[in-house]
Amino acid sequence: MDKFADDTDRKLCIIVSKGTLDGAYPSLIMANAALAEGIETHLFFTFWGLDVITEKKMGHLPVTPVGNPSMGMPQAVAPMPGMATVATKMMKKKIHDLDVPDIEEFVEMLSDMGAHLWACRMTVDMLDLDEGDFHESVEAVISAGDFIEMSEGAQLLFT
Amino acid sequence: MDKFADDTDRKLCIIVSKGTLDGAYPSLIMANAALAEGIETHLFFTFWGLDVITEKKMGHLPVTPVGNPSMGMPQAVAPMPGMATVATKMMKKKIHDLDVPDIEEFVEMLSDMGAHLWACRMTVDMLDLDEGDFHESVEAVISAGDFIEMSEGAQLLFT
Amino acid sequence: MDKFADDTDRKLCIIVSKGTLDGAYPSLIMANAALAEGIETHLFFTFWGLDVITEKKMGHLPVTPVGNPSMGMPQAVAPMPGMATVATKMMKKKIHDLDVPDIEEFVEMLSDMGAHLWACRMTVDMLDLDEGDFHESVEAVISAGDFIEMSEGAQLLFT
Repeated sequence: MDKFADDTDRKLCIIVSKGTLDGAYPSLIMANAALAEGIETHLFFTFWGLDVITEKKMGHLPVTPVGNPSMGMPQAVAPMPGMATVATKMMKKKIHDLDVPDIEEFVEMLSDMGAHLWACRMTVDMLDLDEGDFHESVEAVISAGDFIEMSEGAQLLFT
Repeated sequence: MDKFADDTDRKLCIIVSKGTLDGAYPSLIMANAALAEGIETHLFFTFWGLDVITEKKMGHLPVTPVGNPSMGMPQAVAPMPGMATVATKMMKKKIHDLDVPDIEEFVEMLSDMGAHLWACRMTVDMLDLDEGDFHESVEAVISAGDFIEMSEGAQLLFT
Repeated sequence: MDKFADDTDRKLCIIVSKGTLDGAYPSLIMANAALAEGIETHLFFTFWGLDVITEKKMGHLPVTPVGNPSMGMPQAVAPMPGMATVATKMMKKKIHDLDVPDIEEFVEMLSDMGAHLWACRMTVDMLDLDEGDFHESVEAVISAGDFIEMSEGAQLLFT
């Protein structure tokens, strides 16, 4: 599967801690760019980031204008029913129009390119999940200690 | 105190900028994992992250479902009085059930393991605080420049 | 322009993904500290972070207490009309009182100190912007791949 990876001695380890569209995409896009450069790339999904690789959730990651004034919606309106759905649809459409794959397809693509995907043991225990709940491209559930060990010599991103 | 630190030549510098439970724990957990691997570990608390080491606040870090659709509560309900309290209690219980220490105990444990804890000078001035307001394990209030200097050769995380 | 940069062999690459005052300032402050130490410094503005270098927006970056319980305002009150304006004014005043420049002045100062500022191609396309929409200190619109290439050997921060 490592079509692209391991062409350089660079290594990139990305900790993904958010489960929203605008939280997840930057990680995936950076991972994709790194893999295309032949960089060994690891993604460690923790806290809300676990949603990005959870079968039942990865197809439905939301985005909300609540608490994000950058989206340009008044905060008095943003929490109203339906607003998050509208914002999510709009962002999905914009991303789709740029030919950027949706989350599930993106995760599969990264895995095909040689990315290593890991789920955080502590979060898995906290949410009462198990290995079967994750996308098949996830290699294993590992501890923060395992992740720290494998990140030796890597550039790190916490997203 | 350096029971674990300095067994390798790795160095990890974590900038902690958030003062919520879900913002703070990932930093503390990564620091703990790094220290257990013998990695020299520094935490620089800045902006809202300063709450994590402020005596009066560290015992009461909140978490809110507002603006975080990953928590599964409708955004029209999330801002209602009491909801943040419920969410905070639930997360604290889940963390406690995993035998993960509460924030104050965790900060003390990291310090005992050899972590170096620093408060950001600019934020301290912005909030009209002084050194006496922080947990005793904080070594000093330092500038961003001091932090950049000490991070030479380190892996960085901004959380 | 490189009055300060390139005095060491260190390199810092900061990905700026947020467009709020409390999201943007930590990046700018770290960049400033790094430049003062003679470190080659790159800032890559992506997603909401693009607002920080967009001519029409950089003077009006907001901050909101919504979803940020660290600001101490009840979440039932925070979304009310006017609250974000009050919070933004208060933070701007506090930052001004510390003699920290406002966003536009800060971006210019960083550029004068030798910082390299880049806009993310994908976000630019997503928001239907073009090069003319950005502050003149922005060197170019580049892809995530270009950014990954230029970050070889750098310390990374994702803010």
